[in-house]
Amino acid sequence: MVNALKEKIAAKTAIIGFIGMGYIGLSLLDAFGSAGYPLIGYDIDQKKIELLKKKKPYLNFLDHKNLFALMDQKRFKISNDSVVLQEADIIIISVATPLDRYRTPNLTNLRNAFLTISKHLQKNQLIILQSSTFPGTTNEELLPLLEKSGFKIGKDFFLAHVPEVTDIGNPEFSVAAVPKIISGITTACRTLATSLYKQLGCKTVACSSTSIAEAAKLLQNSFRLINISFINEMKILFDHMGLDVWEVIEAASSKPFGFMPFYPGPGVGGSCIPIVPFYLVWKAKATGGQAVMLEQAGHINDLMPTYVFNKMIQGLNLQSKTLNGAKVLVLGVTYKKDVNDLRESPALKLLPLLKNMNAEVFYHDPYVKELSQIEECPGLALKSIELNYEMLALYDAVIILTDHTCYDWDKIVLHSHLVVDTRNVTANVKAKSKIVKA
Amino acid sequence: MVNALKEKIAAKTAIIGFIGMGYIGLSLLDAFGSAGYPLIGYDIDQKKIELLKKKKPYLNFLDHKNLFALMDQKRFKISNDSVVLQEADIIIISVATPLDRYRTPNLTNLRNAFLTISKHLQKNQLIILQSSTFPGTTNEELLPLLEKSGFKIGKDFFLAHVPEVTDIGNPEFSVAAVPKIISGITTACRTLATSLYKQLGCKTVACSSTSIAEAAKLLQNSFRLINISFINEMKILFDHMGLDVWEVIEAASSKPFGFMPFYPGPGVGGSCIPIVPFYLVWKAKATGGQAVMLEQAGHINDLMPTYVFNKMIQGLNLQSKTLNGAKVLVLGVTYKKDVNDLRESPALKLLPLLKNMNAEVFYHDPYVKELSQIEECPGLALKSIELNYEMLALYDAVIILTDHTCYDWDKIVLHSHLVVDTRNVTANVKAKSKIVKA
Repeated sequence: MVNALKEKIAAKTAIIGFIGMGYIGLSLLDAFGSAGYPLIGYDIDQKKIELLKKKKPYLNFLDHKNLFALMDQKRFKISNDSVVLQEADIIIISVATPLDRYRTPNLTNLRNAFLTISKHLQKNQLIILQSSTFPGTTNEELLPLLEKSGFKIGKDFFLAHVPEVTDIGNPEFSVAAVPKIISGITTACRTLATSLYKQLGCKTVACSSTSIAEAAKLLQNSFRLINISFINEMKILFDHMGLDVWEVIEAASSKPFGFMPFYPGPGVGGSCIPIVPFYLVWKAKATGGQAVMLEQAGHINDLMPTYVFNKMIQGLNLQSKTLNGAKVLVLGVTYKKDVNDLRESPALKLLPLLKNMNAEVFYHDPYVKELSQIEECPGLALKSIELNYEMLALYDAVIILTDHTCYDWDKIVLHSHLVVDTRNVTANVKAKSKIVKA
Repeated sequence: MVNALKEKIAAKTAIIGFIGMGYIGLSLLDAFGSAGYPLIGYDIDQKKIELLKKKKPYLNFLDHKNLFALMDQKRFKISNDSVVLQEADIIIISVATPLDRYRTPNLTNLRNAFLTISKHLQKNQLIILQSSTFPGTTNEELLPLLEKSGFKIGKDFFLAHVPEVTDIGNPEFSVAAVPKIISGITTACRTLATSLYKQLGCKTVACSSTSIAEAAKLLQNSFRLINISFINEMKILFDHMGLDVWEVIEAASSKPFGFMPFYPGPGVGGSCIPIVPFYLVWKAKATGGQAVMLEQAGHINDLMPTYVFNKMIQGLNLQSKTLNGAKVLVLGVTYKKDVNDLRESPALKLLPLLKNMNAEVFYHDPYVKELSQIEECPGLALKSIELNYEMLALYDAVIILTDHTCYDWDKIVLHSHLVVDTRNVTANVKAKSKIVKA
């Protein structure tokens, strides 16, 4: 049975089904489609399915051309009816694994996806989880859901965990360019998953258990949270000392070993850095262990929008203005430059702070036309202004939150009364007296 | 006046005096001596001067051949009389900057060195500090000492800070291979220092102030403390979860961007990682700022010898033995492999813990013949045993603390009852039941 599937993988006749049509799912569909595999896409989100069927991209940083061509060639079937999953030889799951407000992992998406698979499970199917989650999830939480089918793992079906490692919006690291960490419940599970990713030309790294693979992904993201939070703490400290953290980092970066520069900002967003590490923190507590540095790093990250906010009040104050009644323009609301992704964006924390102080708040973002029905700030209903550099004098303060490539920093400073810069993009702009680094 | 010294530097006739004959001082002497400069070496430590004069190396990881040849050629004058410093055109200071037991910076060495220089200060001398210290030291603490001479900075004499960046015992990074972060009290100070290091073929990075250069060095070392402590916290956590941290790190390291592996151990030693970051923590408090993550990292580091100690008690316990009365052999007492450097070594914390529990303690280290008169453990008086692998069964437990290259890990495990491995050097050794990772 293992061999039959292995042969289908090698012959590229294995049908690959995907649950979750987010960035990861679509990237993988693109990669496996380009490699020649027939594809099935499934999502419970009716809106995404509709947009895909109408060939309307909802992610600005992913090229959909190839996927749409595959649809035309009837090699990529999209559905919101889970029964399509019965046709797949392989099912790859990449659904979101969020946290609730208490930083407790919410595995609802993941459990539902696995319950759906279980309902339709076919003999010899290979199930691959690519969502990030805490050590033990695949083995202890998800495997039992599939075993409800009555099928036996490693014999009747196969379950692997292959953490997704990606740099969103960075074309340098395609799916194939990133080595795949591969683990399975049994050796057969791992072998099958390995043979699949090898077909993409990926390097593979075998783990002895799915828990090790889950932990490896959490360690990667935790490393980033630790270091970004640390440099943000240093930003605040060096500011107290009258030193420019950016100049300190530049000098320190000359060290040719044992150093990796991280850069401060208004707080981290997306899923990998602000969310994933807290799957480890949560699991730590359940095992009687500790992750104090991660908790501290999360705390520092939480503080960053407030730090930016206070720097702005101080900047206005030195111009004899209050935030109350001030016109404030936020430039960039996405968590990362040049992507249309708002997940955990510091903007969603900063905007309510400004509103609560009775500022008149405006924003501009070329990738986000309106902010409304945001779960984090239910009262928010704003539309992106049209950016006219010469009109910036209308605002009492401009906050640079996201360093989108399209912005002209010189012009922004030239026409503004006060610029709060969280990204050091105005480093080479003259007129320092107008600029507050935050 | 600047030009006169510049010309001497270019002509390599400038006499370079050094205060502090430790690793940094000797490395720099070697580099500048090889470049052709006449040298003077001064240290208040009479023992070091005597050993050098007798051509007896006291650091095993530094090749002294070149330095001794320079002595023979009368191009390297050594003295413990500070009056020799009057002959120097340039004086480079690399004295230790330790902490007291309350983690308060102790600038005594540094102040004394500068008071000595001040006493002998000559017109047009260039003074270069290469010791690590908190932001503001050069400008606020040391400059005033030199100004006592009545000379004027940037006119009559010059003061620069060039933090020392080095990987002790790693021949890959010679003095010339590491870019130099260069700062001066005035532009002339920085220009002179830059021209000097350029003569070694060093890349140079200019900083706008000595405080920036000081902070850059502290950031480099703090980054390492943060990350080593974090991975040690993860080691403990993953152990709770039944996962091998080393396998997790190996898998995580396959990520081709945004990740840098750090490895756990029994605690960090030397000066750069356990000492230098606390110069920043101390200064943070004085400025009303915070360095919470660094303090937490220091706390985790402090715990590591106790963690190893407890793992050993547990290992003995499972063999139905108590530590009380057990014969324990510690392999390696230096803080880093293949160097004879004991500074802040975790061994100096672990050995007293073992003794206090009435263990019979032995150690072996090819680079440390005896442990006595150690400031941290005044009661300690041990001599390195002769290592005979076949005799290891005499000990109830063997702790691998330093992974010196000379050790044969297979033999160590083969002949021991219990091996506590803090360095994962037994990863590929069979007989896992004898091994406790710690």
